[in-house]
Amino acid sequence: MKVDGKSFRSIWLNPDGWSVDIIDQTLLPHEFRVHNLQSADQAAEAIVSMRVRGAPLIGATAAYGMALALRERADDAHLERTVQSLLGTRPTAVNLRWALARMTGALQSVEVSRRAERAYEMAHEMCDEDVAINASIGAHGFDLIQRLWQARKGKSSRLNILTHCNAGWLATVDWGTALAPVYRAHDAGIPVHVWVDETRPRNQGAALTAWELAAHGVSHDLIVDNAGGHLMQHGMVDLCITGTDRTARNGDVCNKIGTYLKALAAQANDVPFYVALPGPTIDWDMTEGVGGIPIEERDPSEVTEVRGRLPGGETVAVRITPDGTTARNFAFDVTPANLVTGLITERGICAASEEGLSSLYPEQEFSHE
Amino acid sequence: MKVDGKSFRSIWLNPDGWSVDIIDQTLLPHEFRVHNLQSADQAAEAIVSMRVRGAPLIGATAAYGMALALRERADDAHLERTVQSLLGTRPTAVNLRWALARMTGALQSVEVSRRAERAYEMAHEMCDEDVAINASIGAHGFDLIQRLWQARKGKSSRLNILTHCNAGWLATVDWGTALAPVYRAHDAGIPVHVWVDETRPRNQGAALTAWELAAHGVSHDLIVDNAGGHLMQHGMVDLCITGTDRTARNGDVCNKIGTYLKALAAQANDVPFYVALPGPTIDWDMTEGVGGIPIEERDPSEVTEVRGRLPGGETVAVRITPDGTTARNFAFDVTPANLVTGLITERGICAASEEGLSSLYPEQEFSHE
Repeated sequence: MKVDGKSFRSIWLNPDGWSVDIIDQTLLPHEFRVHNLQSADQAAEAIVSMRVRGAPLIGATAAYGMALALRERADDAHLERTVQSLLGTRPTAVNLRWALARMTGALQSVEVSRRAERAYEMAHEMCDEDVAINASIGAHGFDLIQRLWQARKGKSSRLNILTHCNAGWLATVDWGTALAPVYRAHDAGIPVHVWVDETRPRNQGAALTAWELAAHGVSHDLIVDNAGGHLMQHGMVDLCITGTDRTARNGDVCNKIGTYLKALAAQANDVPFYVALPGPTIDWDMTEGVGGIPIEERDPSEVTEVRGRLPGGETVAVRITPDGTTARNFAFDVTPANLVTGLITERGICAASEEGLSSLYPEQEFSHE
Repeated sequence: MKVDGKSFRSIWLNPDGWSVDIIDQTLLPHEFRVHNLQSADQAAEAIVSMRVRGAPLIGATAAYGMALALRERADDAHLERTVQSLLGTRPTAVNLRWALARMTGALQSVEVSRRAERAYEMAHEMCDEDVAINASIGAHGFDLIQRLWQARKGKSSRLNILTHCNAGWLATVDWGTALAPVYRAHDAGIPVHVWVDETRPRNQGAALTAWELAAHGVSHDLIVDNAGGHLMQHGMVDLCITGTDRTARNGDVCNKIGTYLKALAAQANDVPFYVALPGPTIDWDMTEGVGGIPIEERDPSEVTEVRGRLPGGETVAVRITPDGTTARNFAFDVTPANLVTGLITERGICAASEEGLSSLYPEQEFSHE
């Protein structure tokens, strides 16, 4: 999407032809800086430190990390070590496992001297695929928004969409998942307005979603994570769309902590709650999400401190609690399928259920029977 | 309650015999500083700037504000001007209206020369009453906690209680409302553990509740507001207790923004959700809360900025969004009565319904029929 009028993806091959450029998302929204990756270790560091985040972008970064590693040494042992190292960066991200499994599967049968070249080709392909997938999610979600707007038109001057965390183009290679339909609707002239959950503890909504929407010119207001229930109770939300890091076979969706609370409020107030996801995010081996998906606990300092910018421009972390306060930092939660109105995929919209998912991905269903 | 081993209330008469001391809660948790009030304007400023907050403490501060005003001039016109000025400080707070109405009603029939003296007496009485009310809420809530602990004992090493915002002693004159039962249970040796919602945008949980609990030695962990649903879904919350700023006749409770989301999660996961309140917080004229109670919107900068302490000790506000991001800041929400397991009052625990409230406050019921 556009930044200052110039088109960007969130990851791309540097003009040197081998190193990889990313946008350092830890510096957003206050600074837009391109960060260069030259090794698998640097790719792993970028994932761990969340310079890149969002399931599809993590997968793409890991794929390029493989290419960077194999450029140095392409033997089986080094390949395996690299996979293990990249796998350990974010235990919850199923895209990461999927991307690495796909790379490994293909590369093992390639002769050592050609592995690096093939790894770069695959990383490029995976990026292009992600863009195509998200463009398609955008098209299907756009149909939904258009129908809702036809029904609201005349009763309201705008269509209010609530989103949590950042599932925009910064979380993918381009377009985004949850925000792809929003961008499409905005471009088509539908007056969408986005309620942006700030999304503590890391404030990806306040930092990234607000930044993206502003860059593209989409109307929005930031709200605290506590506010969505009140808004839904008072008819101020027409639609919720979030992303997901991992979808279980039964339609349970794992997403940023707090998504579940919004889904409860949506159900209680008859607000449609959709989750946008690319096929690779579906974990067909996970039969149900609430009991099955392990929830990553991150550093408590993300809870006890908040990062932001001082009036002078410096970015700092400030402590919001007394010294000595302990915290727990669960990074994700699981929204049970029964709270999800539908899943927006690149193949269409389906019910959040095994039946729904199987209707769109029959080949996966067969492969696991 | 205790601070560094010394007993404090949240508001008291200065040893000079006429001015009023409060704890400046905007400086907590990083600095404990006593702030002196010498006029009604200073009392109003303390309420508006949230040096004092919490429904009962706002009422007490307004009462002392009246006394300070009448000490200067006690004629009807000045009395009326002072009431209007104090009423305008926090439109949502029913205790404020109640305290001022009670003062006005009594003082109008007192001769001008004795009004100031009587106003001080009434302010003292109202503080003592609040302490007695909260001690009684603590006793009734303690019975509830004791029953829950008897049922959990052996299955768990601690009883997990989730609270939102600060309804502790800092929000009242002493004891607190939601936290009074927690302090009682802790003192009685029940191993309570409190999940403290940080409570954006003003972080009263992170700042005040965490500070209070630490000062009293109660086990607790800070969590982001997004986390409570996940905890309840996984059996990590045995009980929710919050306070309320205003309770409608039908049992709907208005409390800090985000309370409603926790009540939805509690119902979905069979976690008891109790609201602690002193009788004066009940608004018998408000037949239902969701549609009836006006929700205060506060300054958007509370959402776009976070206050906290730099490593050097200085307290600053940092901006968490891009420049130009707009925000909406709804301060409260209303939890419908059907999500509330029970109301803990100074007269006992009742159902969140007109029948329940009337059974404990029959005199109010009659006075409004």
